[in-house]
Amino acid sequence: MRILGVDPGLTRCGLGVVEAAGGRKVRLVAVDVVRTPAEQSPHLRLLTVAEALDAWLAEHRPDVVAVERVFAQANVRSITGTSQVAGVAMLAAARAHLPLALHTPSEVKAAVTGNGRAEKVQVQEMVMRILGLAARPKPADAADALALAICHAWRGGGVGSAVRASYGGADTLPRAVGTGLTPAQRAWAEAERAARRAGAVAPKG
Amino acid sequence: MRILGVDPGLTRCGLGVVEAAGGRKVRLVAVDVVRTPAEQSPHLRLLTVAEALDAWLAEHRPDVVAVERVFAQANVRSITGTSQVAGVAMLAAARAHLPLALHTPSEVKAAVTGNGRAEKVQVQEMVMRILGLAARPKPADAADALALAICHAWRGGGVGSAVRASYGGADTLPRAVGTGLTPAQRAWAEAERAARRAGAVAPKG
Repeated sequence: MRILGVDPGLTRCGLGVVEAAGGRKVRLVAVDVVRTPAEQSPHLRLLTVAEALDAWLAEHRPDVVAVERVFAQANVRSITGTSQVAGVAMLAAARAHLPLALHTPSEVKAAVTGNGRAEKVQVQEMVMRILGLAARPKPADAADALALAICHAWRGGGVGSAVRASYGGADTLPRAVGTGLTPAQRAWAEAERAARRAGAVAPKG
Repeated sequence: MRILGVDPGLTRCGLGVVEAAGGRKVRLVAVDVVRTPAEQSPHLRLLTVAEALDAWLAEHRPDVVAVERVFAQANVRSITGTSQVAGVAMLAAARAHLPLALHTPSEVKAAVTGNGRAEKVQVQEMVMRILGLAARPKPADAADALALAICHAWRGGGVGSAVRASYGGADTLPRAVGTGLTPAQRAWAEAERAARRAGAVAPKG
């Protein structure tokens, strides 16, 4: 299964494609960051991102698109720009007839580092180790897009669950692994614990 | 000049097209509200809105698209959904090679009612009177989309100014008529005062 992860942003939008090969094996396919200039009209900036997304969908043919769910931030202007890009990415998935998954930043951090409040550098470090890269993916937006795709691969996140997640609204995805898990999430948590016991690289607690 | 006004929203997205015939004359071309069900996947809801926008652009051939600028609200979830739809509308304008204008809710209210903090019903009432309609446009989202288009027509808002506005970022559009006006805004404010003295229907103070 190929997953396109999108870390939405108007200044920098991270795009990362990974291939899940069963179990916890994931392989890097492509990673990049789309940049748009702040002095450009916002609708033309969105067009640049949309065209990059369409090109990636055509070239890498993912089975699912995972987009970071935008939450409250200090800067409301940045929420609106980030959400506009998220909307454009979600629309690109719909136009390509692909299922959509939304994951929160803390779910992504918890999946790849074991800590829902990990620093950016920890996420970059773990993405490097999980994908067997020679260096940390930079900038952080690129690492975040890959982390999102890995998170989706590891959350038992086949296409079916992506559709379920995308239909469920904001509150159906648990913010972190804990009580009240669904059977699939419980199986995932158990697999994760087993992997940790076996000394697997990720996630570490 | 034809203006498509878009009041973005995931549950209800207002669309209104008006034709500006010079001076303060504006004529209704079309108005509707696109509704999408809350239980549907968000990316499919965005697709429904995007397809409606594309159909309106093809049918009504506006010269400019005016979208309500989303600001801080109590409900962050509603900001993100509203911004996603705004992003989809801005992208539709860019793909149709049309200029984009963004106006804040208070600019729109000030333009059609003379009061930047007018109630929804006042906006509906003034839109009815300005366009010579038999009844108030309902729901409020439909009236808001028309008010946005009227606002754009009246702010001296030709295509040139739309491009300028869209390139200018969030802080270049004055929130309300006051000090620090550009020559065009000053001319508009003078015309407005003249119209009020002449007892024109809109805007009233």
